Amino acid sequence: MARYVLKFGGTSVANTTRLEHVAEIVKQETEAGNQIAVVVSAMAGSTNELVGYTHSLCPHQTTLEHDVVLAAGEQITSGLLALALQGLGLKARSFLSWQIPIRTDDSPSHARILDIPTTELEKCFKNNIIPVVAGFQGVTKDDRVTTLGRGGSDTTAVALAAVLSADRCDIYTDVDGVYTADPRLVSKASKLTSITYEEMFEMAAQGAKVLQARSVELAMKHKVNLRVLSSFIKSKGTYITSERNLVESTVISGIAHNQNQAKISLLNVPSNAKNIALIFRKLAENLIDVDMIVQSSSPDKKMDLTFTLLRSDLDRALPVLEEIKKTLNFSEIIVDNEIVKISVIGIGMKSNMEVASTLFKTLAEHNIHIQLISTSEIKISVIIEQHYTPLAVTALHTAFNLDEKKI
Amino acid sequence: MARYVLKFGGTSVANTTRLEHVAEIVKQETEAGNQIAVVVSAMAGSTNELVGYTHSLCPHQTTLEHDVVLAAGEQITSGLLALALQGLGLKARSFLSWQIPIRTDDSPSHARILDIPTTELEKCFKNNIIPVVAGFQGVTKDDRVTTLGRGGSDTTAVALAAVLSADRCDIYTDVDGVYTADPRLVSKASKLTSITYEEMFEMAAQGAKVLQARSVELAMKHKVNLRVLSSFIKSKGTYITSERNLVESTVISGIAHNQNQAKISLLNVPSNAKNIALIFRKLAENLIDVDMIVQSSSPDKKMDLTFTLLRSDLDRALPVLEEIKKTLNFSEIIVDNEIVKISVIGIGMKSNMEVASTLFKTLAEHNIHIQLISTSEIKISVIIEQHYTPLAVTALHTAFNLDEKKI
Repeated sequence: MARYVLKFGGTSVANTTRLEHVAEIVKQETEAGNQIAVVVSAMAGSTNELVGYTHSLCPHQTTLEHDVVLAAGEQITSGLLALALQGLGLKARSFLSWQIPIRTDDSPSHARILDIPTTELEKCFKNNIIPVVAGFQGVTKDDRVTTLGRGGSDTTAVALAAVLSADRCDIYTDVDGVYTADPRLVSKASKLTSITYEEMFEMAAQGAKVLQARSVELAMKHKVNLRVLSSFIKSKGTYITSERNLVESTVISGIAHNQNQAKISLLNVPSNAKNIALIFRKLAENLIDVDMIVQSSSPDKKMDLTFTLLRSDLDRALPVLEEIKKTLNFSEIIVDNEIVKISVIGIGMKSNMEVASTLFKTLAEHNIHIQLISTSEIKISVIIEQHYTPLAVTALHTAFNLDEKKI
Repeated sequence: MARYVLKFGGTSVANTTRLEHVAEIVKQETEAGNQIAVVVSAMAGSTNELVGYTHSLCPHQTTLEHDVVLAAGEQITSGLLALALQGLGLKARSFLSWQIPIRTDDSPSHARILDIPTTELEKCFKNNIIPVVAGFQGVTKDDRVTTLGRGGSDTTAVALAAVLSADRCDIYTDVDGVYTADPRLVSKASKLTSITYEEMFEMAAQGAKVLQARSVELAMKHKVNLRVLSSFIKSKGTYITSERNLVESTVISGIAHNQNQAKISLLNVPSNAKNIALIFRKLAENLIDVDMIVQSSSPDKKMDLTFTLLRSDLDRALPVLEEIKKTLNFSEIIVDNEIVKISVIGIGMKSNMEVASTLFKTLAEHNIHIQLISTSEIKISVIIEQHYTPLAVTALHTAFNLDEKKI
């Protein structure tokens, strides 16, 4: 008997028809003799609606009340899916985070899971009850409701798979796997049969929306076998494991792009390590993640500091930066919204120095100017003007021989 | 320092603008030096939406999963109002039922409150934190989520006022008090300054929608001073207490009408007390409340049984009755949807036998046929054809001298 955690995303539970379809999938997996635990996201769109309410009431403050509101979305779908399963004659019950409990720290809207006891869920398995766990939410040691950040239901699913020693965690979504590039941009993009944790982490971190990066990191850490597949069409999806069959030619596994990016330049900041520390500490305190950073000092002891952050964090970041501007007395804050981050990702890159040169050559051939670069062992990311997105992704997909990739 | 429980209904928290307005009301009450606990309903319409989902997934079964789904509505508004209060610079936090906890029995969608410890709420008062309690929901001893039935937030508010020994429980709604009749039907209807628990209970039970009848019963039992008032316009509202100043002429305090009624006739049921018991036991087991009952036996040992129930329960009641029909083998089930229950209510009725005769005379003058009658110490209810509603209510309002009533 195998044990699987099945996670269904927002589009998979978007309405009652979809929920009935999901119930059928769960039923099939159960009838195949497997032990199944389910994790659900909120209905597509509902979290955005709830965030809209909280922002209009309290735009400049994040407290745990924000989390109380947002957690309601997954509560609704967990109850509804349990009902749908009962409608099919199966035994099922919903679990809210506090009923398990999924313990987290107390960071509003970015909580981290600390501990998940398995007693309640094992009791369900023993009694042939299918547990349907509300994703995305947790509870502090003081019993306050928390949420895990956008896409947090993936993290819930992986964490549950880890503590339950599940044979696999299946992430059901609206695409049938992980692609070499966004198929809406690149017609020759193809589905990957498998991909390594490291590659998937970079794909997710660099903008591929199929999985939350943190959940991949967690899966890698706890060696949870992952699979991404569609709840809409039958397909084996993409397996995410510790190794993939590396054919020599497949140095690069995919091209990701992320338009949720903004570039900030702070001009004429007094050159001083303390100042740099202050800037990034203040941003961190306000839960604003900074990505690529470039510092260019000029002869007059002033420097320009450029960095990228999520465009969706811009509204929260700007007041913080204005305050720092007053403190450090620098001359200007320049914001550029019209950018995209393109990332070339592949575990084969480690042993292949040609990747960077192919990347630069390809973009140069199309007169695309690179504004910022960052690299890791298995990826190179560049910031370019946003309107070049389709051109750059398609050209790189061809240049790295992904067009002919066997799936 | 007075202590008040303020309860805000669905239209009062229907959107973020309304929630900000509610936060202002709470702020004023706090700044006046009072200790305030707040109870909120779900946003107007949201419970209906959630019920729609649960019914389409599992139409013929009520399990606690239904309650898990529905409870999300009040979770959202409790978090949002806490945020709105924080936005005004006040200390506030939401409370979900399990955090207090509000213990109930385990009847799905009709749970009854068993116990409410006050430790957490008293802690809030001590620290000047305004608790915003999600109404309508509770939690069983096994930590499963329950709901208290439609309008259950009123019950939450009254129960909290009782355990907290509050000086008053203010029920904020979209009307500015209790009227002698529905002002949309009767132009001369006037607002009552005060009304007794008994009268209010009958008004609520007979169709006046300002308060849930159960909450009035609870207030009466625990001597909780109640007030119904509007969150939309400034007004003192209507006080509900154990006594009102009875002027001799005001025998009748109001006319209620309830169109959520259906009349069922079971024809040719074998005359037998066991059969009657079986019918009503089966309905009770399915949580279907029966109201007025008339039994007419015929010489051939068969009887016709007529009773009323809520029109909204009809879909659930009919399959139950069809099954009973098979068991008892009677000839027919006749359903009449086009009826209304009109109730004349007044504590003065006890000592005044003219009420019934005025009622019958008035309806007769307008050729309105009475189908069923039921009486209690302080009310007379009749079932008539639905299309007579405005005519009957207006005529009775005049006949019982309510047109000239001082408010």
